[in-house]
Amino acid sequence: MPGRQLDVLEANEAFYRAFSERDADAMEGVWAEQAPVACIHPGWDALDGREEVLRSWRAILEGPSAPDVRCTLATAHVMGDVAFVVCREELPGAVLVATNVFTREAGAWRLVHHHAGPLAPGQAKPSRPVRGPVN
Amino acid sequence: MPGRQLDVLEANEAFYRAFSERDADAMEGVWAEQAPVACIHPGWDALDGREEVLRSWRAILEGPSAPDVRCTLATAHVMGDVAFVVCREELPGAVLVATNVFTREAGAWRLVHHHAGPLAPGQAKPSRPVRGPVN
Repeated sequence: MPGRQLDVLEANEAFYRAFSERDADAMEGVWAEQAPVACIHPGWDALDGREEVLRSWRAILEGPSAPDVRCTLATAHVMGDVAFVVCREELPGAVLVATNVFTREAGAWRLVHHHAGPLAPGQAKPSRPVRGPVN
Repeated sequence: MPGRQLDVLEANEAFYRAFSERDADAMEGVWAEQAPVACIHPGWDALDGREEVLRSWRAILEGPSAPDVRCTLATAHVMGDVAFVVCREELPGAVLVATNVFTREAGAWRLVHHHAGPLAPGQAKPSRPVRGPVN
């Protein structure tokens, strides 16, 4: 796997590490500072701009119901200085599918867009079964 | 609005025109041919590669339950030769939020990733109300 794909997957893992450790400061560091960012949480309307997006993450991570999340089956598509990752998010009682778009800023991959939505029960592809009681 | 953003929005509209007109050939022309593509339909697992993605679209467009879809509130984020669009998809009885990622191939914006998921009832932002009976 080319090094750039690994670098993108590492940035993707940093995002999920900040998420699962409920570390709002680390989450802030994951997102792009120059490129305009956006975010679509499951069931939510689209959020626009760094301030609105980071405010939502701070509320989620500091709230009482911040979910434990585990990223699995991540694949990176790199197109020059922009990349997107498709992955699973495994939470207690639910499995989501996510798209994370990254761009390079000052040599580092930074998140510009996150979109997660539910994987319906029974819809996991046979080649990528869900591990756990959900499906 | 810079010309590149308009060009991306035009490519996004071509995608929804192929969708709403159930035109599988036009849909095939919308997707990238060189860059590896992916797609996450609402509730589905991620699909990988042009063959699998286009097969899914042909089944949806030629099936008996192909939905009427209208794209609204599209915003384009352009980063060089890659861009992503965030928009609403208004269907009879449901509103989805979508991410569409494009890249330039032979001077034209082509779709490399589509991800759509439901906007939960009551979750539309006050600044972007849903028009219709859904929310």
